Amino acid sequence: MKRVLILGIDGYIGYSLALYLLKQDYEVTGLDNFSRRALVSDVEGFSLTPILPISVREHYLRSFPNFIDSVFGVNLDDYYTLDSLLKLIKPDVIVHLAEQPSAPYSMKDVRASMDTQYRNVLGTLSLLWAMKKNCPEVHLVKIGTMGEYGTPNCDIPEGEIPNQCLEDRWDEMGAIVNHPCPMAGLPFPKSPNSFYHLSKVHDTNNIIFACKNWGLTSTDIMQGVVFGTKTDYSNNDEQELTRFDYDEYFGTAINRFCVQAIIEHPLTVYGKGSQTRGFLPLKDSIQCLQIAIENPPKAGEYKVLNQFENIYSINNLADIICAEASDYGLHVGIAHIPNPRKELEHHYYNPTHEKLFSLGYNPTIEIREEINLLIQSILPYKDRVIEEVIMPKTNWR
Amino acid sequence: MKRVLILGIDGYIGYSLALYLLKQDYEVTGLDNFSRRALVSDVEGFSLTPILPISVREHYLRSFPNFIDSVFGVNLDDYYTLDSLLKLIKPDVIVHLAEQPSAPYSMKDVRASMDTQYRNVLGTLSLLWAMKKNCPEVHLVKIGTMGEYGTPNCDIPEGEIPNQCLEDRWDEMGAIVNHPCPMAGLPFPKSPNSFYHLSKVHDTNNIIFACKNWGLTSTDIMQGVVFGTKTDYSNNDEQELTRFDYDEYFGTAINRFCVQAIIEHPLTVYGKGSQTRGFLPLKDSIQCLQIAIENPPKAGEYKVLNQFENIYSINNLADIICAEASDYGLHVGIAHIPNPRKELEHHYYNPTHEKLFSLGYNPTIEIREEINLLIQSILPYKDRVIEEVIMPKTNWR
Repeated sequence: MKRVLILGIDGYIGYSLALYLLKQDYEVTGLDNFSRRALVSDVEGFSLTPILPISVREHYLRSFPNFIDSVFGVNLDDYYTLDSLLKLIKPDVIVHLAEQPSAPYSMKDVRASMDTQYRNVLGTLSLLWAMKKNCPEVHLVKIGTMGEYGTPNCDIPEGEIPNQCLEDRWDEMGAIVNHPCPMAGLPFPKSPNSFYHLSKVHDTNNIIFACKNWGLTSTDIMQGVVFGTKTDYSNNDEQELTRFDYDEYFGTAINRFCVQAIIEHPLTVYGKGSQTRGFLPLKDSIQCLQIAIENPPKAGEYKVLNQFENIYSINNLADIICAEASDYGLHVGIAHIPNPRKELEHHYYNPTHEKLFSLGYNPTIEIREEINLLIQSILPYKDRVIEEVIMPKTNWR
Repeated sequence: MKRVLILGIDGYIGYSLALYLLKQDYEVTGLDNFSRRALVSDVEGFSLTPILPISVREHYLRSFPNFIDSVFGVNLDDYYTLDSLLKLIKPDVIVHLAEQPSAPYSMKDVRASMDTQYRNVLGTLSLLWAMKKNCPEVHLVKIGTMGEYGTPNCDIPEGEIPNQCLEDRWDEMGAIVNHPCPMAGLPFPKSPNSFYHLSKVHDTNNIIFACKNWGLTSTDIMQGVVFGTKTDYSNNDEQELTRFDYDEYFGTAINRFCVQAIIEHPLTVYGKGSQTRGFLPLKDSIQCLQIAIENPPKAGEYKVLNQFENIYSINNLADIICAEASDYGLHVGIAHIPNPRKELEHHYYNPTHEKLFSLGYNPTIEIREEINLLIQSILPYKDRVIEEVIMPKTNWR
């Protein structure tokens, strides 16, 4: 089986992916610098799920015979360590989840903003140089975000501007033709809306160049907003719990709402709530990552996958969460609060996401059921909720 | 008159711009960390023109009554210092020339590459936060590069994707229509070809966001390759000489060729030489910067100017330089050497550059005459040429 190096193995997606792959006989090695634990603690948050100390987690990972090794405390910008590690580890695939993942955190202040772009952009740049030197043939699976695209007033393709204009065209005789777009093949222009999203766009641009100039091979995943706690291989053992953040910085919309629901706090929708985004359950995210691992682009190719199950408006989701919470006797309302972000609240949104489906992605269609299960899975931790960290204090303007 | 803060006042363009503005009664303040001197010295280069030590330069600058102050040794990533300085200086315009300006340097090794993106991207990000806090109304004139666009197989607009498709379109009755492009208004996608050019694209994206989100105002200049030593206000005093680099890293094509010409070394053209780029003399660059300073966008707007006089192929320029050198009795040949860069050697290139002309840019049409004057101006320094630093040692692949 493939030897997978997971950068960010201690994170929300990283730990879930590690267990998922270990249970399927992949050889897994992981790196982490515990930055997620440190950053969440910095903003006075705490994972809702009681996650194990790293030494205990590591012990559990080592109980799998196909877990090769973990190296902790390494920062990606430390090129020389990375260089030695890649030489030793000899991965077939590198899954890069080792970035500062929060948009609101990147807007908090100058320090957090510079820290985000430093970690993400310089860390990935160092990784690209280390791959070029040691293993240019390795497949880099990089997690980007659908937020790189922003909300442009046109359809969003997967990566490149398509060959054909997105609208009907006629020739001079009045017959409909597939009119080529003069910009076909160029990267679709991004309109990111935070310094975090920008850091991902910078990464994307650096990776495109590394593929073109050095022949590296990469799948760049534009991922929607992930929610949930479980994957298809999760059990209920405490060793298998992944972290679950719900603070204003590291808690994404659905996760944060579900935590509000279990304490019967009104769901705090930012602004009008008609903002529309792509979402997917954690188990779909992990399924898709495996599909990406198993379907590398051809050598030297840079490939984009738009990774989400479907698009929903925030109001949509809030309504679903209220309804599902009532199954557990929870009475939850909705409160619209002033939007701390500067974003369009009414907008066109039509991103493509065909490639993963064509590679076999079997999506969770029943988002209601998934949200219901999520509420059920976090209810036991109700008493651990720190209410004060949920409300937004960072104003993006 | 306007109070202009020049970031990078000790550099090639920065020092020329400072003198040009001082002679026209602008109030000028400058910052520099001497990184250009240090970097050129690191690669064992040396300015062909004997530039003054910084203390003497500063003394000369202070002889102008409208020179306000200079602060040396400040790095832009030092947000807290920048913050205090902006409070004190209260500029009307900030001209940001304080970046690592060499593409080959950024491809030299991992250290130089990370250093380039750190200085340029994190430095500019820190500046944006400091402007947001202290002077969000100030006009930021930022030097980018035409190299941000790369060489796409279509026309290059100035900044945004234009409203109309770039090609003729018909309606269903066969009449020609101005067919709107569905991506109109999005930033034209960039295809940069080095980690330096990428750093400028990252900057551009961060600046666009700072304008959109915080209401900052910026002119982002996509500048062609600059050559020459003089501006319209230059005299021949040694105090007024700007630096003139010709090493493989910091010497741009025409400057490097002219230095080869004065020592009668064959002009070393990289590859086939049909690479085509936009060029402009230093005096035009400075003229255009003044036009940018005098024509700010409206508050909160991000405006792109494509800044070059005309486009030339490298072979074109090499031929002109050989011919003009012969006026001085110099016998110069042309040697095609393997291209150390990975770039298209035959390509379409048609960038727009209308906006500066419409604002009054009066270009140097006679590039031959300009090159002739350049050769004349550097001939006295012939004995200072260090031949070994000219030939490329960095292979971009």
